[in-house]
Amino acid sequence: RWCLGGVQNLALPMYGRYTQDLGVYAKEEAARLRESGQRRSVADRSRTLDLLEYEKGRCAKCRICTVRCQKFLISRVGEDWIFLILLGLLMALVSWVVDFCIAICLQAQKWMYGGLDSNVFLQYLAWVTYPVVLITFSAGFTQILAPQAVGSGIPEMKTILRGVVLKEYLTFKTFVAKVIGLTCALGSGMPLGKEGPFVHIASLCAALLSKFMSLFGGIYENESRNIEMLAAACAVGVGCCFAAPIGGVLFSIEVTSTFFAVRNYWRGFFAATFSAFIFRVLAVWNRDEETITALFKTRFRLDFPFDLQELPAFAVIGIASGFGGALFVYLNRLIVQFIRKQKAINKFLMKKRLLYPALVTLLVSTLTFPPGFGQFMAGKLTQKESLVTLLDNRTWAKQGIAEEFDYIGHSQAWKHPQVNVFVTLVLFIVMKFWMSALATTIPVPCGAFMPVFVIGAAFGRLVGESMAAWFPDGIHTDGTIYPIVPGGYAVVGAAALSGAVTHTVSTAVIVFELTGQISHILPVMIAVILANAVAQSLQPSLYDSIIRIKKLPYLPELGWGHHEKYNIRVEDIMVRDVRYITLNCCYRDLHNVLLTGHLKTLALVETAESMILLGSIERAQLQSLLSQQLGRPRRLEYIRERAAAEKKLMSVVSNPGSEDESQRISQEVRFQVRARHSCNIWTHGNTSGFIAEWEEKQLDEQVNFNNCKIDPAPFQLVERTSLHKTHTIFSLLGLDHAYVTSIGRLIGVVSLKELRKAIEGSVTVKGVKVRPPLASFRDSGTSSSENETTELHKLWDRHKSMSLPREHTPSESDEKSQ
Amino acid sequence: RWCLGGVQNLALPMYGRYTQDLGVYAKEEAARLRESGQRRSVADRSRTLDLLEYEKGRCAKCRICTVRCQKFLISRVGEDWIFLILLGLLMALVSWVVDFCIAICLQAQKWMYGGLDSNVFLQYLAWVTYPVVLITFSAGFTQILAPQAVGSGIPEMKTILRGVVLKEYLTFKTFVAKVIGLTCALGSGMPLGKEGPFVHIASLCAALLSKFMSLFGGIYENESRNIEMLAAACAVGVGCCFAAPIGGVLFSIEVTSTFFAVRNYWRGFFAATFSAFIFRVLAVWNRDEETITALFKTRFRLDFPFDLQELPAFAVIGIASGFGGALFVYLNRLIVQFIRKQKAINKFLMKKRLLYPALVTLLVSTLTFPPGFGQFMAGKLTQKESLVTLLDNRTWAKQGIAEEFDYIGHSQAWKHPQVNVFVTLVLFIVMKFWMSALATTIPVPCGAFMPVFVIGAAFGRLVGESMAAWFPDGIHTDGTIYPIVPGGYAVVGAAALSGAVTHTVSTAVIVFELTGQISHILPVMIAVILANAVAQSLQPSLYDSIIRIKKLPYLPELGWGHHEKYNIRVEDIMVRDVRYITLNCCYRDLHNVLLTGHLKTLALVETAESMILLGSIERAQLQSLLSQQLGRPRRLEYIRERAAAEKKLMSVVSNPGSEDESQRISQEVRFQVRARHSCNIWTHGNTSGFIAEWEEKQLDEQVNFNNCKIDPAPFQLVERTSLHKTHTIFSLLGLDHAYVTSIGRLIGVVSLKELRKAIEGSVTVKGVKVRPPLASFRDSGTSSSENETTELHKLWDRHKSMSLPREHTPSESDEKSQ
Repeated sequence: RWCLGGVQNLALPMYGRYTQDLGVYAKEEAARLRESGQRRSVADRSRTLDLLEYEKGRCAKCRICTVRCQKFLISRVGEDWIFLILLGLLMALVSWVVDFCIAICLQAQKWMYGGLDSNVFLQYLAWVTYPVVLITFSAGFTQILAPQAVGSGIPEMKTILRGVVLKEYLTFKTFVAKVIGLTCALGSGMPLGKEGPFVHIASLCAALLSKFMSLFGGIYENESRNIEMLAAACAVGVGCCFAAPIGGVLFSIEVTSTFFAVRNYWRGFFAATFSAFIFRVLAVWNRDEETITALFKTRFRLDFPFDLQELPAFAVIGIASGFGGALFVYLNRLIVQFIRKQKAINKFLMKKRLLYPALVTLLVSTLTFPPGFGQFMAGKLTQKESLVTLLDNRTWAKQGIAEEFDYIGHSQAWKHPQVNVFVTLVLFIVMKFWMSALATTIPVPCGAFMPVFVIGAAFGRLVGESMAAWFPDGIHTDGTIYPIVPGGYAVVGAAALSGAVTHTVSTAVIVFELTGQISHILPVMIAVILANAVAQSLQPSLYDSIIRIKKLPYLPELGWGHHEKYNIRVEDIMVRDVRYITLNCCYRDLHNVLLTGHLKTLALVETAESMILLGSIERAQLQSLLSQQLGRPRRLEYIRERAAAEKKLMSVVSNPGSEDESQRISQEVRFQVRARHSCNIWTHGNTSGFIAEWEEKQLDEQVNFNNCKIDPAPFQLVERTSLHKTHTIFSLLGLDHAYVTSIGRLIGVVSLKELRKAIEGSVTVKGVKVRPPLASFRDSGTSSSENETTELHKLWDRHKSMSLPREHTPSESDEKSQ
Repeated sequence: RWCLGGVQNLALPMYGRYTQDLGVYAKEEAARLRESGQRRSVADRSRTLDLLEYEKGRCAKCRICTVRCQKFLISRVGEDWIFLILLGLLMALVSWVVDFCIAICLQAQKWMYGGLDSNVFLQYLAWVTYPVVLITFSAGFTQILAPQAVGSGIPEMKTILRGVVLKEYLTFKTFVAKVIGLTCALGSGMPLGKEGPFVHIASLCAALLSKFMSLFGGIYENESRNIEMLAAACAVGVGCCFAAPIGGVLFSIEVTSTFFAVRNYWRGFFAATFSAFIFRVLAVWNRDEETITALFKTRFRLDFPFDLQELPAFAVIGIASGFGGALFVYLNRLIVQFIRKQKAINKFLMKKRLLYPALVTLLVSTLTFPPGFGQFMAGKLTQKESLVTLLDNRTWAKQGIAEEFDYIGHSQAWKHPQVNVFVTLVLFIVMKFWMSALATTIPVPCGAFMPVFVIGAAFGRLVGESMAAWFPDGIHTDGTIYPIVPGGYAVVGAAALSGAVTHTVSTAVIVFELTGQISHILPVMIAVILANAVAQSLQPSLYDSIIRIKKLPYLPELGWGHHEKYNIRVEDIMVRDVRYITLNCCYRDLHNVLLTGHLKTLALVETAESMILLGSIERAQLQSLLSQQLGRPRRLEYIRERAAAEKKLMSVVSNPGSEDESQRISQEVRFQVRARHSCNIWTHGNTSGFIAEWEEKQLDEQVNFNNCKIDPAPFQLVERTSLHKTHTIFSLLGLDHAYVTSIGRLIGVVSLKELRKAIEGSVTVKGVKVRPPLASFRDSGTSSSENETTELHKLWDRHKSMSLPREHTPSESDEKSQ
């Protein structure tokens, strides 16, 4: 340790030069280094080659070639596009395999159900047991392997992309748990989606791939690069799930980011396109499709997709979806909170963790049992089949359904001999609505996008069929008859409801990419925007809701046009009672600060009088400083020293024989051994007196910050920074807290908490806080406020009084005083 | 003036209190203000109403109602969505009217050309004169009214959205010049686009609307809000131009922003959707269309849009478009630079400003004259007609064209009796390529997107027709025959080339929205991404190229995966020789600093020794300080005082008569008048001696910063901030420069210039700079580097030496010194 200190001290003059007259020095050094570096690297390479040639002789050419290839590959591996292609490829494969397994699972259930048609009870057992087993396995597997894999993953990714480190969320274990858990969960046929988990899986893939690639080069260890790659991975996740590259990029941006770097845009597009491409090519290769097309291709007429007079109906879908979306988020949160609050239930469920999933699955699958209640809500259709039928371009209400459908015949499920198709649709919507809200609370890897999407499509279909029944020959009056296309309404409804639940506009794009038709662009856009407007004013998005439930660190968005944000200043919300330590403080101050506060980082100021902010120190660093000062090694050392001193004293006094000496040494050794075992008894023991005294002395010593990591540039704001700007900076830079300074002096601190409170407070108590406290003080100036001037006055006055008396001129103050 | 000073001095104690113990004071004051404010506003309102009722008596109810309505309206007018709807509506109307006028202009030309078919020379005259007159008028009109309206406007908007204030770019004059100039320019039939100018027009609209709305309330004066609205306006501009809301939003983001706030996203979508909707509704209302559909609707088959084996052809289109796009940008820049460099030409053109446009128009229209060379390049088609025929879903190469086309018959233009359709296409591409590059340099309001789009479509068509000729029965082997659709290739080509020129991916979305079909999504995405990859590695985007030509302040993007950016630190690029002023400096220092440097803002530090950064002051502020100190009012005053003193002295000495007194006074007046006229002669005149002495004295006085605007929070970086992060912060916050501090001490400054140099330098000299100069110094530590530690050492040592002598502990430095 002393040696290190010495080196540092020796190094000082050189660094002094480095920082002082670097203007010249840096340029010289730079030129020198660049040249020598170039020469060196060339020399290095040729030397390696020479060496190889000399050493091996025979298969030298081979080896040289290999080395060259290796070098080339390694240099290429660092390029972003290689990484993105690998990521896209991997995710397309994962997505396809997961889809394949899910399809097999669902087929197996159908086969079992179909094979047992002789006995309804056996049929029911098969219908119910299958999903219960799968969901229970999924829940158990996830619980055991990685509980972080539970749920959608989008809220966590949003938090991670904000810069917060969530432990264990990007590990291989989580990856395995998420993929297998998701496959089983979706294979059960419950109303769950794969989109949210795929965002998480893609991020996991990217993180693991990064780790793997870092074996080849050091580029993959850069943090900001990793965050950029994670953002691209989120796009890949959505893109390869829906084969929707553009929608995937936009959706992932809307859902995970607050600020988006356009330079990162191409990464998402590149990877998502590649991934979607491979995903669809796999389908062609597997002979599922003839060529690359959309996932849920529609065949609406192109020449007259909809009439202008149908737009009010589309607007109604949008507004209703907005309310529906908010209700869904509310219902989902209500269920979670209800289960958490009911202590009796909670205790029971906690003990038998797998009971809740099993019970929910039992309930849902019982209700969808096709010969039972399921016959009134197209219960035998899987999610995918429902969506295909809902987006069908035929009209159900007018035409007889059964006779005309010669192909798969899934639409038959909607037609009940006794019950109207409208009733079936309404029942489907209502039942699926609460089922989906309930099912997404099961602790398995699952998303809510797809179920909501299907419900939205059903709702749109309902409105469309009603319109078709109302205007059998279409609305358009002059010329040709253009009948209404209920499938178009389903598209609009799907986009609107999923947009409302997730608070995104890009579901519109996803819908176009999913259906392969963009002819309904204006109705879809109008409905999605209206749905968003309604939903955003009522509830947070589903992901934000989960973030709040899970108590992840978050920053609320500045909502739709809350102008008062522009008027609130940092000085109105900052905490003025900042915990700080001074550069010349003693260990006792450190001790006190650590005891009273609970902040993660502490401000370091020059002195308590000047309050000039020098930097911030992490709590852990301070703790280690303190423990270093008072820790066992130093205690032992002190005791040894003291013992030695006493010994010397004694030997001077009594001058004992040599056997005495050896005895004393052995005693000392014993003493030390004891000390090592029972350090805490010490203070009460024999030696407690002088140890306490020593401690006091140690605490009074000045802190040595030499070996302490100090962040020299904690983020600083000034009093007059607006809330709007503060929010921008916090979300841009992913801050946790920022110090408020006034001309270098620390005067306050703002953390996420205060910011959150300020934003949410003024959102809810809108009428009251439009003029924030102290607002009247700032209407006068724009840039140079009175506060700043005052501070400068003081400094200026101080300097004036300190400077030498000069010849007097008729300055303002003099004029006044005379 | 003294009075003002007095007030400020009086006000000091109060502000002193305000800043000192604000913790308590602020809370009290806030509560008091809030309550009283509330009470007051309620009281105010009721008083107004009472007053009205009392005063008028009779039609009081009416008036109260009016006042209430007015209040309600004013409160609503402040909402963003009202503003956005108005903006969308306005822009849709402008777009439609412009389109309408252009269509009439083009029809008139056709009519003239068609009516004179008896004489080819007259035909030629008509064909050529018409565009020459229109373009010349457009150029002259723009030149006279607002030269800022020239060109696309996107580069300027990009600069404005970075936070730079460009004067006169957002005025009503520019709006008028841009709209009328654009209409005339496009009405001439030259290969020009309306998209870029529409971005500018929409921004103009937003700025003017903002100004207009600010009459109703004060919300519209907030700057960050205005920037957000301008960003939305850019989206509206593209959206209402192509009826492409999604593509418009994305394109405007890619083209104008570096960082994008997702919370601003909905604004763009909302306004652009509304605008596109109204734009298309106007077409329906005008009976141009039966219902709302895409602008260039295609009718490709849905079931099998393309075969997997066609993808290489699409990739080839993408790569070729990338090279083509880069070539276009290069050509455009070359033409501008050539004309600028040729001094003889330049001088001549400068004198006759309208000659250049006229000459270019003459050349282009001569070459497209249909009976002349134009017959080989479909010269008689307007831009819109060309695009419609190029996107046609029939195959030209196989089928006879003439006989099958029963509708408009524009496709006939591509078929020449003697010449192959391939030759026509190649000629069209080549001729239009240089024509467009040349035409966009004409000083009229014009964009390059649409011409490039058409050329791309033609190129795609060429490849498609070749493919169709090569595989007459399609590539797909098993089962049904799916012939190749050359129109699909045209779509891909259009997106790829326009994407390459503008460096955007969102042209893909624009293409889908323009054609109303999304079936070719994967080929389009692949081609666009490849085109971007090629073009971005060769040339800047067209808009960045114009920014550089126009020398607007810009910040280059961090390119595709330049990892070395992560390793360069601010200390490597910062300027260490910072111009600064100290708080206790005298006016002479100010004078010297202003004489030597040319920076817009100067750093204010506490003292030259401590170098603690206190803020930054604008140059203009310092100049006004200096001129205040040495300006005429003070000079005159000094002279008057001196004269009075002399007079008194004289009167004491000689005690003259009353006529002497009056004479002296008249003399003084004359003296003053002279002074007012010839201030600079003074110093050499009679009085020069004591004036020079006075000046010297004034310059030695300490500067009074009281009335000076100081920015208390200039942006600060630390030495170890990476280039990557610096770039992010600069582009996020739109900075012009940032100070580099080390624990409060100013040690350097980084401006856009240095940053630009660092980024571009390391981009071009890629191999060399991978390890930047001085990089080897930093491989050791991660957060606490030696530099910081050194600085802290020094501070700590200073404090230790200043503090009282304490009991010595075996600290590092002591150990070393002993």
